[in-house]
Amino acid sequence: MADHYPPATEDYPTTERSRVRRSPRRGSHARAEVHAILDASPLCHVGYVIDGAPYVTPTLQWREGEYVYWHGSAASRFLRAAEDMPVCVTCSIMDGYVLGRSAFNHSVNYRSAMVFGTARLVDDVEEKADALRRLIEDLFPGRWDSLRPMTGQEAKATSVLRMKIDEATAKVRNGPPGDIDEADYPVWAGVLPIRSQLAPAQAAPGMPDGIALPQSLSDLIGSGRIR
Amino acid sequence: MADHYPPATEDYPTTERSRVRRSPRRGSHARAEVHAILDASPLCHVGYVIDGAPYVTPTLQWREGEYVYWHGSAASRFLRAAEDMPVCVTCSIMDGYVLGRSAFNHSVNYRSAMVFGTARLVDDVEEKADALRRLIEDLFPGRWDSLRPMTGQEAKATSVLRMKIDEATAKVRNGPPGDIDEADYPVWAGVLPIRSQLAPAQAAPGMPDGIALPQSLSDLIGSGRIR
Repeated sequence: MADHYPPATEDYPTTERSRVRRSPRRGSHARAEVHAILDASPLCHVGYVIDGAPYVTPTLQWREGEYVYWHGSAASRFLRAAEDMPVCVTCSIMDGYVLGRSAFNHSVNYRSAMVFGTARLVDDVEEKADALRRLIEDLFPGRWDSLRPMTGQEAKATSVLRMKIDEATAKVRNGPPGDIDEADYPVWAGVLPIRSQLAPAQAAPGMPDGIALPQSLSDLIGSGRIR
Repeated sequence: MADHYPPATEDYPTTERSRVRRSPRRGSHARAEVHAILDASPLCHVGYVIDGAPYVTPTLQWREGEYVYWHGSAASRFLRAAEDMPVCVTCSIMDGYVLGRSAFNHSVNYRSAMVFGTARLVDDVEEKADALRRLIEDLFPGRWDSLRPMTGQEAKATSVLRMKIDEATAKVRNGPPGDIDEADYPVWAGVLPIRSQLAPAQAAPGMPDGIALPQSLSDLIGSGRIR
């Protein structure tokens, strides 16, 4: 893409829609922070409106510069409903439970990004293939070239949407419970961290002998990350 | 609550809104399946509409019978925007990446539930306390009674919303890639399972000696579940 993006040090604009109201110390419009959360969370939840009612569909997202992408079956109602419409894409990672001395001081350590824009269908065939390649390569570096090439029919059956990020908010909470002034209350307080990681790979049934798990996938499994 | 719920063996109604269109073999309106996904996923994404535009906010949800609950600051715009409005609450768990021999046959193993209804503020003080107790107890069995009791001010500062589930859809994919007919294509195929679990507890700084991690929390950490 030939777009020139604003530098990652530049904040997203603050508007009525995206202004962080609650706990502003946890909120930010910093591009770098929004991007880091999107990139760490392949799973997103896309919000869209049909006949005035809200829908939230989970799907995978990936990012290139100021654009967030997702895809699905060309016949999907979800994709068609979001096309050319305002959408909200939210990525959230739960990093841990925060246990305070009172119910009120319980919380969650998390990172979340809400991004707003208008979804557009990626029409151009080359651009679509390029976006799908990116989806695979972002998850499994080096895999695309090892795959059976995509057929014309497969490309046709797949729709890709992309959304330029018009506005965005990142929210992060981390650290211990905030009730340090009640540290003498006789109950255990602290954090139970939550970790999402890959478990050992399960080869497909019937795979011929001699096809080993590629090093890049072992590396990914060992990395403790899921992207 | 005195409500009488339909038996869990009874499906949610199928309407235009919630009818499963894509991959109907993966979709269901079965109460038991919807409930199991909600109960396994404390994190949810709530979709709501402000001035015709969609918003998706992550929060914790918990369930009692046919009601889904979430909570937040009484001053939260998110909670006020969802009150008395149609909302969509979606819970999603990524169970693994499915790697096929072609890009097209890549997929995700997942469980997701989309539930629809109208959110109502829980006004009654006792009912609110009861709901918050349930939130804590569902996550950390036995913890509520060990906590410093909730003050009137804390109760006031906390809003609880609940939503009767009018309609719901569960979608599940599991198993290996579907391209067994291409098993001789020379690339590794299979599943990379994703596991979310609790890591060892981190005690809050400054906690007095002699307050040990309760057995119920060690058990939870050892369970491999996050609720």
